Amino acid sequence: MPDIMNQQIVLKSRPMGEPTEANFELIERPLPPVGDGEVLSRTIYLSLDPYMRGRMNAGRSYADPVKVGAVMCGGTVSQVVQSRHPNFAPGDLVLGYDGWQAYGVSRGEGLGHLDAKAAPISYALGVLGMPGMTAYVGMLDIGQPKPGESVVVSAAAGAVGSVAGQIAKIVGCRVIGTAGTDEKCDHAVKVLGFDACVNYKTQDLVRGLRQACPDGIDVYFDNVGGPVLEAVLRQINPRARVAMIGLISQYNATALAPGPNLMPLLVKRAMIKGMIVSDHKDHEAAFLADVSRWLKEGKIKYREDIVEGLASAPAAFLGLFHGRNFGKLLVRVSPDPTRR
Amino acid sequence: MPDIMNQQIVLKSRPMGEPTEANFELIERPLPPVGDGEVLSRTIYLSLDPYMRGRMNAGRSYADPVKVGAVMCGGTVSQVVQSRHPNFAPGDLVLGYDGWQAYGVSRGEGLGHLDAKAAPISYALGVLGMPGMTAYVGMLDIGQPKPGESVVVSAAAGAVGSVAGQIAKIVGCRVIGTAGTDEKCDHAVKVLGFDACVNYKTQDLVRGLRQACPDGIDVYFDNVGGPVLEAVLRQINPRARVAMIGLISQYNATALAPGPNLMPLLVKRAMIKGMIVSDHKDHEAAFLADVSRWLKEGKIKYREDIVEGLASAPAAFLGLFHGRNFGKLLVRVSPDPTRR
Repeated sequence: MPDIMNQQIVLKSRPMGEPTEANFELIERPLPPVGDGEVLSRTIYLSLDPYMRGRMNAGRSYADPVKVGAVMCGGTVSQVVQSRHPNFAPGDLVLGYDGWQAYGVSRGEGLGHLDAKAAPISYALGVLGMPGMTAYVGMLDIGQPKPGESVVVSAAAGAVGSVAGQIAKIVGCRVIGTAGTDEKCDHAVKVLGFDACVNYKTQDLVRGLRQACPDGIDVYFDNVGGPVLEAVLRQINPRARVAMIGLISQYNATALAPGPNLMPLLVKRAMIKGMIVSDHKDHEAAFLADVSRWLKEGKIKYREDIVEGLASAPAAFLGLFHGRNFGKLLVRVSPDPTRR
Repeated sequence: MPDIMNQQIVLKSRPMGEPTEANFELIERPLPPVGDGEVLSRTIYLSLDPYMRGRMNAGRSYADPVKVGAVMCGGTVSQVVQSRHPNFAPGDLVLGYDGWQAYGVSRGEGLGHLDAKAAPISYALGVLGMPGMTAYVGMLDIGQPKPGESVVVSAAAGAVGSVAGQIAKIVGCRVIGTAGTDEKCDHAVKVLGFDACVNYKTQDLVRGLRQACPDGIDVYFDNVGGPVLEAVLRQINPRARVAMIGLISQYNATALAPGPNLMPLLVKRAMIKGMIVSDHKDHEAAFLADVSRWLKEGKIKYREDIVEGLASAPAAFLGLFHGRNFGKLLVRVSPDPTRR
């Protein structure tokens, strides 16, 4: 298929602080011929996630950075177009990590088949994928919520927070969200079933959380860091657990911002623990079984925020840092053959 | 014994920020008659510990505050003078919690017999008591050091840090201390067997720790918080454990100081966990067996800093916050009949 041109978004330059669209470049390149053992697939959905900001930096974090000039990394749901790999055939729907491009070529490593009958294929990038598993492992393994405990979840309407909070509800906890718009707070309470949700932009966080958690906070699922973490620590209960899943408030920082006062950790014998979901592959089968069942039973609601076309990716990605998305942010790079 | 006058140091006023001697008052009161079921004992050693600063505040921390006008709290090693309790007889040496006074009356709860042949009786307030157990539980339970790992211990020459670091050496770790004088650093390396010790007052902490821990830091036993914690977090290894045992740098703070940047916790999937030793009574038998044996085998060295006379207690206590003590700080309130 030598005639197909591939569209790619590459990292043009490394951002200092908050990235801009100028850090990305959309380029076109002819697709190379598919070699022996390779699979060519057309990207249907590209996942946009806050962790990608870290990959734009030069330094190694928990994973290698994206090189300047290279295609931005990212999870993808695709359809196989051509295959010289025994396990994949044209038409197969696959979950991969092809990044910000219209077509990807892989040798089949990390490529997994998707069953469109089991769930919408885009869910593999969200509630049934990395964000969902982050919620599942972070809440259950680190948070260890017990029935009746009070659980706070930041970014409550987001891809990870929405699932984390609903899992805590399934456990039998009182669940309080924080979010940046009244619309998101309404969604957390009315659709997701949270007990309350504090709008951190219009309400006083300490007071809002105190009203919502009169018995103190036992578990905090932290997607954001910053003032929410500070406000939570001031009202944690003895032996509270803080699962540190993300620090989106700091991803664009150019200097190391101070953190919260940690005296409550000592006085309350509490714990803060960071988590990277890729460390927990051993939990994947349990995660998929549980969350698939909860989705079918209607115990987990899931919302996607889908933007159209690869060229929309940079602006949509930048919006993540301002809470502009409402639900799991995806780019529809090409039509989804399973949705009409 | 109606003729004996008791000397007591009471909390005269609550400090704002750093306490002064004016917050304490030495008073004399006649001893009440010993009632049925009561034990009167003469204080030999009074333990002075940083946690007492928290009890001087009005708010409840993990324990109730000392009331203004009440005797300052504290662990004591005493000799029974008079007893109307079946388990105690005059002459018995006991560990109790009589506080800052020359004589204490108790109903026997929490009063334990000491065997002067097993170890110097003062050790029950240090290496074989609350500080030693804090070191044991904090290092082994929270720190979970593995042979070959790099372990940092702050307040390395202090009652808790000195024991914590030696336990990590017994485990087979590389152990690096921090302390505030060259004399204490020398002691940590030459007497306690630490691999290195950084003087946080004269050396750059980040650079000093980097030189001493070229492979990064796996465990931090934190007695102090503040800049040492910040410097450690900047060089922790994946899955590092920080046992937060004390935050002496903050005990006199009048406002909540910001804490360290917590991004390393996320990137390194590391953990900070606070600990209060009184939660861990189930570990006491193992602690006493292990640390007694290590003392006898010479694997743990222990240093005391003993000041003379109850009246010296306030100044000695205030010195804790400036690192003036060198070893476990005790007040010899009356002669120790077991030491000549």
